[in-house]
Amino acid sequence: MTSTEEYKTLAANACARRDASMADIEKYFPLPEGFESKHLAPLPDPLPLNVTGIAKEYLNPFDYEITSADPIKLLADIASKKYTAVQVAAAYLRCAVLAQRTVNCVTEFLPDMALALATKCDKYLEETGKTLGPMHGLPVSLKDMICLKGYPQGFSTCALTTFITDYDSLIVTNLRDAGAVFYQRTTQPQSLMHLECESVVFGRTVNPYNRNLTSGGSSGGEGAALGFGSSCIGLGTDIGGSIRNPAAMNGVFGIKLTANRLPVGDTFFINGGSEAIAGAVGPMGRTIEICELLTKVVCDAEPWKISRELAAAPWNSDILKDKKKLTIGVNYTDGVVTPQPPVQRALKEAVEKLKAVSSIDGIEIEVVDYAPFKQELGWEVITSLYFEDGAEVELETFAKVGEPVLPLTEWIIKKANPNVKHLTIPELWERNKSKYKYRYDYNQHFLKSGVDVILAPAYFGSAQPWSTAESLNSTWWGYTSIFNVTDMPACTFGVTTVDPEKDKPIEGYTPLNETDKSIYERYKPEIYKDAPVALQIAAPRSEDELAFYATKLISKFLKA
Amino acid sequence: MTSTEEYKTLAANACARRDASMADIEKYFPLPEGFESKHLAPLPDPLPLNVTGIAKEYLNPFDYEITSADPIKLLADIASKKYTAVQVAAAYLRCAVLAQRTVNCVTEFLPDMALALATKCDKYLEETGKTLGPMHGLPVSLKDMICLKGYPQGFSTCALTTFITDYDSLIVTNLRDAGAVFYQRTTQPQSLMHLECESVVFGRTVNPYNRNLTSGGSSGGEGAALGFGSSCIGLGTDIGGSIRNPAAMNGVFGIKLTANRLPVGDTFFINGGSEAIAGAVGPMGRTIEICELLTKVVCDAEPWKISRELAAAPWNSDILKDKKKLTIGVNYTDGVVTPQPPVQRALKEAVEKLKAVSSIDGIEIEVVDYAPFKQELGWEVITSLYFEDGAEVELETFAKVGEPVLPLTEWIIKKANPNVKHLTIPELWERNKSKYKYRYDYNQHFLKSGVDVILAPAYFGSAQPWSTAESLNSTWWGYTSIFNVTDMPACTFGVTTVDPEKDKPIEGYTPLNETDKSIYERYKPEIYKDAPVALQIAAPRSEDELAFYATKLISKFLKA
Repeated sequence: MTSTEEYKTLAANACARRDASMADIEKYFPLPEGFESKHLAPLPDPLPLNVTGIAKEYLNPFDYEITSADPIKLLADIASKKYTAVQVAAAYLRCAVLAQRTVNCVTEFLPDMALALATKCDKYLEETGKTLGPMHGLPVSLKDMICLKGYPQGFSTCALTTFITDYDSLIVTNLRDAGAVFYQRTTQPQSLMHLECESVVFGRTVNPYNRNLTSGGSSGGEGAALGFGSSCIGLGTDIGGSIRNPAAMNGVFGIKLTANRLPVGDTFFINGGSEAIAGAVGPMGRTIEICELLTKVVCDAEPWKISRELAAAPWNSDILKDKKKLTIGVNYTDGVVTPQPPVQRALKEAVEKLKAVSSIDGIEIEVVDYAPFKQELGWEVITSLYFEDGAEVELETFAKVGEPVLPLTEWIIKKANPNVKHLTIPELWERNKSKYKYRYDYNQHFLKSGVDVILAPAYFGSAQPWSTAESLNSTWWGYTSIFNVTDMPACTFGVTTVDPEKDKPIEGYTPLNETDKSIYERYKPEIYKDAPVALQIAAPRSEDELAFYATKLISKFLKA
Repeated sequence: MTSTEEYKTLAANACARRDASMADIEKYFPLPEGFESKHLAPLPDPLPLNVTGIAKEYLNPFDYEITSADPIKLLADIASKKYTAVQVAAAYLRCAVLAQRTVNCVTEFLPDMALALATKCDKYLEETGKTLGPMHGLPVSLKDMICLKGYPQGFSTCALTTFITDYDSLIVTNLRDAGAVFYQRTTQPQSLMHLECESVVFGRTVNPYNRNLTSGGSSGGEGAALGFGSSCIGLGTDIGGSIRNPAAMNGVFGIKLTANRLPVGDTFFINGGSEAIAGAVGPMGRTIEICELLTKVVCDAEPWKISRELAAAPWNSDILKDKKKLTIGVNYTDGVVTPQPPVQRALKEAVEKLKAVSSIDGIEIEVVDYAPFKQELGWEVITSLYFEDGAEVELETFAKVGEPVLPLTEWIIKKANPNVKHLTIPELWERNKSKYKYRYDYNQHFLKSGVDVILAPAYFGSAQPWSTAESLNSTWWGYTSIFNVTDMPACTFGVTTVDPEKDKPIEGYTPLNETDKSIYERYKPEIYKDAPVALQIAAPRSEDELAFYATKLISKFLKA
């Protein structure tokens, strides 16, 4: 075989490994006698565009009761022995099979690990009458780049599919110690630098609300699993929007905390050792409460005592106890790309609702405008530092086995910022200085605004059709990446879905620039039918608890 | 003039500026009628080696009463109007003149600024009956690299002597807001990377206890001022020992906090934008209490809300309130360089004293051995990252005006680690990964030891004679740099002075390596007469409060 074809074998092997792990589910979790489940039954052909109803239809009602339960309630039901942890793991694994068959969001199922962890929970509860910890028996899904000892760490690239890591990421240990049950690893795109989710290894992960659309990215597998219902909580990572975008595109919650809050340093980055832009690891979940619980569990494990890069910041909900007022700064547009009509409507409706009340849960609410701050410069700063080596390590890794470079990979490396190149050290220093200056100036802008939190679009639109060489659809990360360059905690959450009746194209709009023009012209409401639409709340750096608090308050109020 | 001589003019101009600022003191702080002061009187020729008695002899008793007062008591005496802030500033400035004349520790006097700040304090107290803040009226000395708007930022190098900064470092603002009175800027060595204090601009800063010895470095001007008595509190910076070494060499307290605790990012580094090894800014003071007060004042100003790189860590003395026991791990040697006899004695005496008690102030004390952890590797890791560009920026800056490269500069750049070079990005990443691994492994070692804090030498010896091309005397930073590579807070404090009678050379010692050999062979007790000998206490990263607490407890007990 020529080296240019080697990638195909590697990808096929990885998919075969995934398929074998799927087949193993039946071995580790055989169906109890008389328990019928259609999770392996033939599915409609063609599949409907919207597959969010599949789980209810194809799962046994007992399994569906479990997988559709509120995760905090599910924890209580496991603790009270209504369900065993093994039953819960089985239900989620069978649901995950359906998700894989419809949206292709899994890189590997972990039935053996899930059975061992769930059995341990059940045994412990049986023997001691106590739960193992606050995550006792809860299925937790892991983005593929989170390391599991003895498992491949493929970084979604063919050449690495056979690379096995020899340690667990610290956050895995923290969650496992608290009783979490890992049961699946989820897809991510080539290079991990797309707001979509396509890799040469595993193909495309599609959006469960509309299979013609991407699931978002880079934690797109987790996003799709949450949207489908085969996950209630999982881990993603975010260096430009990779937690928040797929959460938003699937109508769930995703929070990027301050980068050094949760242990991200030992998750797998192909450019390990790079310090210019810090990625974050964090929760993506069905509810804000389960995201908060996961965060609290990790903080309570004091990971900074092991990973000395982290902030020594215990979880502190007390800092909000005297909060009497919340000033919300609404950012309608970032001034580079005007949000598409569904996002405009979602934000407008939210603001109207918020402005109509004086308080929520006894907290005085003030809604003011929040102006964007040099978003184009923010984008230039962050993209000038994503690939300090000009992405040589990525490109060489792809080339080694002939893996084609996908259009969005090509775009972020070569087109998003024409100045990306292998930097010299003084060039790196200069770019770092620009980063500090931007952060400082942004922060001054924020402080002057007087707002506590920012309410903004999660993205310029809902989920987009896939990017191809002819049409790059996911090229403006500004709504999320702004909070990476400024390292502010930010949470996205679904508020509505695209309604072609309400969300008509805006006539006579004059685009601000080429990107804005292409995004404006691309908008045809029917393309986006059923796609979730999300907003975002951001708080100052290190005020992660405030980000959770404000998101809880506002998202619940908007839903009510 | 040829460019090779330009440096001489620049240096002479900088010295002239300093001398003019010294002359200005009399203008801004004229002697009150009938107030006699000999601070400008001729001094003994030759000067005695030990000039720590000069202040008492040459200052007016009123001035000396002020400059010799405990700084916490001095604050109270200013608050109660026993002294005006102007009187205090005057006393310290006159004392600083004597220090400059004997140990050469000042780059610039700030009489105009001191008068304005002190007058503001006095006026505020007069008008409101309140102090401006917790530092009301206290003279605070600044290492030259701390930026003052409108003042030169010379980085101790001729080419930059005329470079004027256009902002105040944030820590300057924090302290000024609390009532601090800045009155002098202190010397630092060429490149800031010596544990001595010699620059081509300002020459050598000598040790007030023994003028044949260096004052330590790089914050050597501050160290000498503290040793002389012309400062009671000042700011230094530390990336390998630069706060702790000169504090130790002058018998006072110097603490390097966790690097991101106090705002260091806007102090002047010639390699600004470098992120590989984080420097720290922090206090050097006559007492641990005044160092702690300064730290608390800065934390209370919440600098992380302005400089978003910082840890959002309020000062928290509460974390120690339930502390019932302190386990002290004694590190007798780092396994690379065996401490010279005075340090061995100091540590032995301290341990004997600590082992003889079961508790101090109600805190149970346990003393155990603490083994070093791969100190040579730690040194290799940190030196491989000090100069990511192979020190090109330093060397080019010197060369531009013909400034000679001093022997210790040459050593740290070219000899301390033969692998220093202009790195490529992948090389930088690899070195960063080695750093993370070392930190992680070191931390595991620390955790396994079970100790709360480490008690170790501050340095391999007391202050050394200057390094020359023939004899490099200050080439083992390991005792301090270990806590930079691990980013642990560490405090040095004087415990005794060299006593040639007690501190005889050790006969028949077999050196461990070439460095150890040269340090062993160089030891002749009479060279070091009167030189302070110091110890060091280190705590885990982020546990700055514990470092202060343990230092207070132990240093007071050892002194008692």
